[in-house]
Amino acid sequence: MFFQRYKFFEIKNEISFKDTLNILDELVLDFHIESNYYITEISSLNIFRENSILFLSKDKYSIPINNKNIGIITDNKNFFLSNKNHNILYVKDISVSYNIIINFLFHHEDNFLYELSDQSLFINGNYISKSSKIDKTVMIGKNCFIGKGVTIGENCIIKNNVVLKNCIIKNNVIINDNTTIGSTGFGFDLKKMGSDQLTPHIGIVLVEDNVVIGANCTIDRGKIDYTKISKNSMIDNLVHIAHNVIIGENACIAAQTGISGSVTIGNNLICGGQVGFAGHIEIGSNVVVAAKSGVTKNIADNSTIAGFPAVDIKEWKKQIINQKKNGYK
Amino acid sequence: MFFQRYKFFEIKNEISFKDTLNILDELVLDFHIESNYYITEISSLNIFRENSILFLSKDKYSIPINNKNIGIITDNKNFFLSNKNHNILYVKDISVSYNIIINFLFHHEDNFLYELSDQSLFINGNYISKSSKIDKTVMIGKNCFIGKGVTIGENCIIKNNVVLKNCIIKNNVIINDNTTIGSTGFGFDLKKMGSDQLTPHIGIVLVEDNVVIGANCTIDRGKIDYTKISKNSMIDNLVHIAHNVIIGENACIAAQTGISGSVTIGNNLICGGQVGFAGHIEIGSNVVVAAKSGVTKNIADNSTIAGFPAVDIKEWKKQIINQKKNGYK
Amino acid sequence: MFFQRYKFFEIKNEISFKDTLNILDELVLDFHIESNYYITEISSLNIFRENSILFLSKDKYSIPINNKNIGIITDNKNFFLSNKNHNILYVKDISVSYNIIINFLFHHEDNFLYELSDQSLFINGNYISKSSKIDKTVMIGKNCFIGKGVTIGENCIIKNNVVLKNCIIKNNVIINDNTTIGSTGFGFDLKKMGSDQLTPHIGIVLVEDNVVIGANCTIDRGKIDYTKISKNSMIDNLVHIAHNVIIGENACIAAQTGISGSVTIGNNLICGGQVGFAGHIEIGSNVVVAAKSGVTKNIADNSTIAGFPAVDIKEWKKQIINQKKNGYK
Repeated sequence: MFFQRYKFFEIKNEISFKDTLNILDELVLDFHIESNYYITEISSLNIFRENSILFLSKDKYSIPINNKNIGIITDNKNFFLSNKNHNILYVKDISVSYNIIINFLFHHEDNFLYELSDQSLFINGNYISKSSKIDKTVMIGKNCFIGKGVTIGENCIIKNNVVLKNCIIKNNVIINDNTTIGSTGFGFDLKKMGSDQLTPHIGIVLVEDNVVIGANCTIDRGKIDYTKISKNSMIDNLVHIAHNVIIGENACIAAQTGISGSVTIGNNLICGGQVGFAGHIEIGSNVVVAAKSGVTKNIADNSTIAGFPAVDIKEWKKQIINQKKNGYK
Repeated sequence: MFFQRYKFFEIKNEISFKDTLNILDELVLDFHIESNYYITEISSLNIFRENSILFLSKDKYSIPINNKNIGIITDNKNFFLSNKNHNILYVKDISVSYNIIINFLFHHEDNFLYELSDQSLFINGNYISKSSKIDKTVMIGKNCFIGKGVTIGENCIIKNNVVLKNCIIKNNVIINDNTTIGSTGFGFDLKKMGSDQLTPHIGIVLVEDNVVIGANCTIDRGKIDYTKISKNSMIDNLVHIAHNVIIGENACIAAQTGISGSVTIGNNLICGGQVGFAGHIEIGSNVVVAAKSGVTKNIADNSTIAGFPAVDIKEWKKQIINQKKNGYK
Repeated sequence: MFFQRYKFFEIKNEISFKDTLNILDELVLDFHIESNYYITEISSLNIFRENSILFLSKDKYSIPINNKNIGIITDNKNFFLSNKNHNILYVKDISVSYNIIINFLFHHEDNFLYELSDQSLFINGNYISKSSKIDKTVMIGKNCFIGKGVTIGENCIIKNNVVLKNCIIKNNVIINDNTTIGSTGFGFDLKKMGSDQLTPHIGIVLVEDNVVIGANCTIDRGKIDYTKISKNSMIDNLVHIAHNVIIGENACIAAQTGISGSVTIGNNLICGGQVGFAGHIEIGSNVVVAAKSGVTKNIADNSTIAGFPAVDIKEWKKQIINQKKNGYK
């Protein structure tokens, strides 16, 4: 799924790849400029975009390095040395470099000039961005905020006090009251705390057809790409879904569950309440997770798991029997 | 407690019991019509209402089957065969039949024509349904939504950005900011996912005298009857209370606790934070639940429990001593 | 940090220390009036304020009892007997006495006359108290409520549907959507339930420079002093921080964590998601808490802990190894 980033995050400054040298200044240790081009996009390891930059730390990936209009900024010396025939910068702090470039390139809601780049209309009790696109069949309650570039498809029901921003909502989606979609993910360098060092998140949330999202939930937008809730998924109240999470079709997620950043989940998840998923893990399809589980590692297709750390439910039952025995001693 | 359902959920189509045959069409396997009547209500196994339908799967209940104006729709063949002298339909899918009939009968916030049946006034910073009834002593903050049919008694304080719908609030109740009351319960057939197969919930929330509800909580309305918070109960922030839950008097429920659907709790509950209650269990009176417990089964009066699965706190302490021993090995 | 309480909580009735005798009436068992003065403030054991009352149950504290304009109300007979040369009341129910006096002295959002003492302006989609003080560089989204006396410093970003009341926000703070700051803490006598017996909370929340607070969080104000989030702290979504909590600098707190009342945390906390902290404990500096932990006791500086009850992570790993063994039996 490609989305047009500029509809959500306006270009703040037009810069060429060569300009990044000046912007990053002393952070640049070495570089090779093969050709120059204007940067209008950011690539990730999942989606390569024309006229973009790709920020890269590791070297284990195969990248379409032959595309001249994807310049690379890396803090990996080996990668730099073996790709010096490409548009490439070798920098000493990749996360600071990312922050500087993105904050220079794009308006977003966590830097200070954002408000200037958009305008809301007050329509029937709701603030709706002039640049949003809402199908005429959509029902919206009261006190909602619908931000810049948001698209809402046919027959959706958006209830009251809902915040929708940086997202694409497909058809027949129901979003319950006081829910926030498209908020900033909890992403930053642990050694660099504070609002001025927040990693800019310029991705979106994609909510597919027939999804139901409960009340008082939070779904954070992707860092560069998207957080995705696939079709027919049902999400209960007070659920937290972090940035870059991908949830497959027909997921059922009970109340107060939290899914950490960059988790990938297959189709047909059934997940009890108050479950936690650690970040960056892969959950297969047809997985059942018992309530209150803490899922800490990849889970194969067709697994039924429970406990913390979550294990096969048969093992967990044995753990519980033993735990109870100890209680009777 | 009886409430007038039509005040919250308007009748969408006037139908007689005989009309259900046409509406359910091929889902009907067999039927017996003893007499015809117009349907204006729905019965549950807890409350039988005049001129209603009762949807029934199991046969272990004794029902006032002699009341001709409570027609039954069942997928239980034995029950059908032994009650063929009554208004009764034998259908092949009880949950789909329920969805079709209820969506045909009632407007509710999860089908598409609801908005047409109500109007809000903008009063002092809040959207308040014309059909709500709010005592003149009630204090309301800003950015609240108060929906169709809602009643609020004397001296209540409703703070800011609160959503109240499908509920009756008695006297001296305090509801803190960003809380949602009366939202749709997480009810659906696990085999039939997606917004178009959501089970219609046409019950309400009843909040009795002197209750305090924290900030950013969610309390879902009943499916057919009500979710009830009894008098003098105190509920902390970010608590989730699912549909059909009945909480007795003087409950104290700390932050981030979640109570699953159809749980019944006696008087004088003291419950720590981040506790989870599994669905459909019965908790006695004077029960104390330690923080972070997972309550998975019925709990007797006067119990003090802890852990997951929650057990008597003395047992839990022994479990913990043993757990710690293993940590020192 | 001293704040001017009357800016948030207006004086409702001017009373002298001598007047408390009449107000508390039969609750007073004995007293000594050394000198009379008008009460305009309340002291706590942390901050002694001029012309105040100090409510005191225990006698283990050393108090600047020589200050004549801090009158004491106590239910501790020994303390009373040994301080009879001071302004002091000996009462039979300290929590009821506190409630009566504070409700008589101050307007606050949980008694009924509060609304009369403040006025909001509707500015650019938000309700903003006339008596708040918001720097001109602050960016505010839509549908926010900013209450009486609130101060917001330079370059803050307040997103949408945010409730800010009874708080001081310093510079460069980002507060995400649907979050509630300054709500009433969950404080009351467990034997006296119901909204009419709620303990009045007349403290504030202090959010220092460069703090980031996620979406749908709740941060309750202090009872008498403040709840404090120190500079550069990062708080994820759906986090609950109770009254009187003090969080040091550079804290990182992941989603759905809950911190109970009066917890003190040092600098540089790193805390995973869904963690719970029991009330009234002290956490040192440089502490790391694994996700889903339950922290039940004081934690020393430089600890890394996990589990419930949380222990040193090395112990926890042994517990987990043993737990897994039992699962394979």
